[in-house]
Amino acid sequence: MSQELGITVDKHQDTSEWYTQVVQKAGLADYAPVKGCMVIKPYGMKLWESIREDFNDKITSTGVDNAYFPLFIPESYLEKEEDIVEGFDPEVAWVTHGGEEELEERLAVRPTSESIIAPFMSDWVRSHRDLPLRLNQWANVVRWEATDTRPFLRTREFLWQEGHTAHATEEEADEETMLRLEQYKEVIEDHLAIPSILGYKPEHDKFPGAKYTTTIETLMPDGKSIQSGTSHQLGQHFAEAFDIKFEDEDSEERTAWTTSWGLSTRTIGALIMAHGDDDGLRLPPEVAPTQTVVVPIFQEDNQEEVMEYAKGVVEDLENSAGCGCGNCSCGSDLRIKLDDRTHRTPGYKFNEWELKGVPLRVEIGPNEVEDEAVTTVRRDNGEKEMGVDREEFIDSSKDILEEIQASMYNELEEYLQENIREADSKNDILSTIGKNRGYVKTRWCGKESCEGEIKDQVSAEIVVLPFQEDSKPATIQASEEEIEGECAVCGEEAERWAYFAKNY
Amino acid sequence: MSQELGITVDKHQDTSEWYTQVVQKAGLADYAPVKGCMVIKPYGMKLWESIREDFNDKITSTGVDNAYFPLFIPESYLEKEEDIVEGFDPEVAWVTHGGEEELEERLAVRPTSESIIAPFMSDWVRSHRDLPLRLNQWANVVRWEATDTRPFLRTREFLWQEGHTAHATEEEADEETMLRLEQYKEVIEDHLAIPSILGYKPEHDKFPGAKYTTTIETLMPDGKSIQSGTSHQLGQHFAEAFDIKFEDEDSEERTAWTTSWGLSTRTIGALIMAHGDDDGLRLPPEVAPTQTVVVPIFQEDNQEEVMEYAKGVVEDLENSAGCGCGNCSCGSDLRIKLDDRTHRTPGYKFNEWELKGVPLRVEIGPNEVEDEAVTTVRRDNGEKEMGVDREEFIDSSKDILEEIQASMYNELEEYLQENIREADSKNDILSTIGKNRGYVKTRWCGKESCEGEIKDQVSAEIVVLPFQEDSKPATIQASEEEIEGECAVCGEEAERWAYFAKNY
Repeated sequence: MSQELGITVDKHQDTSEWYTQVVQKAGLADYAPVKGCMVIKPYGMKLWESIREDFNDKITSTGVDNAYFPLFIPESYLEKEEDIVEGFDPEVAWVTHGGEEELEERLAVRPTSESIIAPFMSDWVRSHRDLPLRLNQWANVVRWEATDTRPFLRTREFLWQEGHTAHATEEEADEETMLRLEQYKEVIEDHLAIPSILGYKPEHDKFPGAKYTTTIETLMPDGKSIQSGTSHQLGQHFAEAFDIKFEDEDSEERTAWTTSWGLSTRTIGALIMAHGDDDGLRLPPEVAPTQTVVVPIFQEDNQEEVMEYAKGVVEDLENSAGCGCGNCSCGSDLRIKLDDRTHRTPGYKFNEWELKGVPLRVEIGPNEVEDEAVTTVRRDNGEKEMGVDREEFIDSSKDILEEIQASMYNELEEYLQENIREADSKNDILSTIGKNRGYVKTRWCGKESCEGEIKDQVSAEIVVLPFQEDSKPATIQASEEEIEGECAVCGEEAERWAYFAKNY
Repeated sequence: MSQELGITVDKHQDTSEWYTQVVQKAGLADYAPVKGCMVIKPYGMKLWESIREDFNDKITSTGVDNAYFPLFIPESYLEKEEDIVEGFDPEVAWVTHGGEEELEERLAVRPTSESIIAPFMSDWVRSHRDLPLRLNQWANVVRWEATDTRPFLRTREFLWQEGHTAHATEEEADEETMLRLEQYKEVIEDHLAIPSILGYKPEHDKFPGAKYTTTIETLMPDGKSIQSGTSHQLGQHFAEAFDIKFEDEDSEERTAWTTSWGLSTRTIGALIMAHGDDDGLRLPPEVAPTQTVVVPIFQEDNQEEVMEYAKGVVEDLENSAGCGCGNCSCGSDLRIKLDDRTHRTPGYKFNEWELKGVPLRVEIGPNEVEDEAVTTVRRDNGEKEMGVDREEFIDSSKDILEEIQASMYNELEEYLQENIREADSKNDILSTIGKNRGYVKTRWCGKESCEGEIKDQVSAEIVVLPFQEDSKPATIQASEEEIEGECAVCGEEAERWAYFAKNY
């Protein structure tokens, strides 16, 4: 592979440089002139469109309506909810001039939209019949973060969806919060093939003003955790600040309960990190813009014959599948590419598609033509099968892709389980994180100061409090046993299991 | 109909107030706290999503890749192309602070993205093999316009797509410009059922720095024209300013040709205006979020029976159609709603769905149940058919929707033709516009001053120069005969036909 095309560093030796190279060389993103901002290139955009479509289908089929709220939030609106001001003010980009004129009031470029959506919820909700009100927008947001910006993982402008809902009761708001968290899990685990840990954020780390914040955390190959989505039960805090009231069945005025939840282009960062290897991206078939690439291998004298056979294979593949509706076989849900470029060698093409993470490669040369066969190479494990009967391959190609998807998930699930280590003293926590990274599972009293003692020394923090039998929402499967024992840091009675990790 | 729900003014007597009421009462948009900005409500968003999907399918199947470029453009980037600065500077919203700190350089909130996309094109294009490069983004843009803001029609922030392409030759850039204009025509005419006039903008009214600008104009019921989309051939102007060069087949360095083209949420304004009537919206079936609404009419004693029958009709309808792939009949391309609310009367429901413009209403009461029939009411012409055989209706429902779509287009096409009036003197132009509005077709010498004389007196301008046999792009069907005669204003030799109109 040419130096320019290929990844020149080992993923595990220099994860940071490896990430930068993959993002650029696989054509996912580029650096914008404004520090900390990015350009999402077509290949990266296809990943986002796939994630967006997957999640959008889930929410719109469970009662959510898309809408669009203004980019600009007047400063006075931000100030109506003091936790929001405190939480976001340091990272707000401010518009002060329109054309030549200075504005009377500064406008915030939205860092999140609670403060602009809540007033409209207040307007639109009159009666219990207007509830639940479930809104979502796909939008850009800006947070003027100073440090550690990286394409997808942390950028000053990013794309996301933000859901905002209002409900008549606390219980319904709880259910909503958990439903969206579960749907994030489906996106992350089923679509992106990344296993995850669900749970609460510690009280001191929740969304400004929220009753509680839930998170979906995924473990990266460098042992750091990525928060891949958050879902907040906002209690009645915002409803009170913005006056979201309704008349109930008995004509009594009551205050609504609200939630908000978001998933961003950061998930693309997690996807790259979690699955990539020294040759570049590895994409799970569900999200891959191209699932199968067919590369013909020919000389001048057999070009026509090989190309014709390759085209036939692509056609047969397309005819073998449906459009995703489940009732037909029109082939539009198989994403196949025939690489018929003549100015590139097969070797160059192999490397390029490996770099771009295409899950399945089909090689077709004169031998394959003669044998009515194909050669297949899996991107996930490099497995090559020669002389696969053509008909057999057509029939099984969907199964192969499903197997790749499952196998990529299982590989990471094993890695995740290996990297959750229990510790029961402060020193134990520190040395485990220092030595192995990953998650350190420990009993915790609930005090911020105990987390602080760890944070000060190894810059790891509590990233998630997994749901437990005794403190889990009704709709969630608890993943942790009940707790009994002392806080590993201070020795007082433990309240719950906590997972320490370094994070993005 | 309750005063609150219904439209209280006559569309033709007070179009402006009528528009405002429809936008708000049909749930399309709301006013944002920042003047001139809007909230797109769920029903309005569904219209935008439909337009977006329709156009996105067209461009992605003709070689365009979606990407995403930064919201913020450094002032120095805007200044690299002086026409852009002059054209957009007065309407730029400026970010001057990030968090607490004043920025070293002001950032423009993008009014359009040529200046931020061109530098990346310059980076990404090396060889003739990288051309054509066709990028598009779906994004929000901000233009700090001072006056006449109205939801959808003219807002300071709006949603749009902007396509940006680079080509090896002038001819290819011409073809690209016209291809996208033709695709706009398909969206406007086939999807939104609004007839249009295609052509050039006058030289003095083209996009800043462009070689030429083409436009698609649609006529509104108040006789004003709306520019519904524009496609610009940018020549080599931007490529030179931003250094978009490539090595051709002979290893010579050459400068590329670029185009840009945009369609915005303004089209929703055109849709509302063009088709609405005194009862509210009228939506063509292709773009309608709900195409058919089934309203059961029952008393307490027959509720169960009527509801069951109505549900059966909906099921049968769904089973009668495909998912749009053309190969199956899974029903997902028919957008049907059963209005089973029990706290609203049928009369209220009729009015509400009329207000929201649902193309076809199906009424089902005890009589229909007994007769194995349905009653249908068309929104476009109010035509009511009672006792339509149930099976017959199921079989023909798609045809009815197609007929509504065609009939809505034809109605406007007739209106358009009636409102193109020829004039051959300055007084004739002035009086025709004064009396009738609509388009005034006239011979024009090409001088801005001749347009100015009209503009000064009746605030009408040349909105489009229709394509003519002698000055049309190769791929476009010319709609105008050759010209011979004198400019209606100054009497010098005419260069082409020009359409004067008041516009939005």
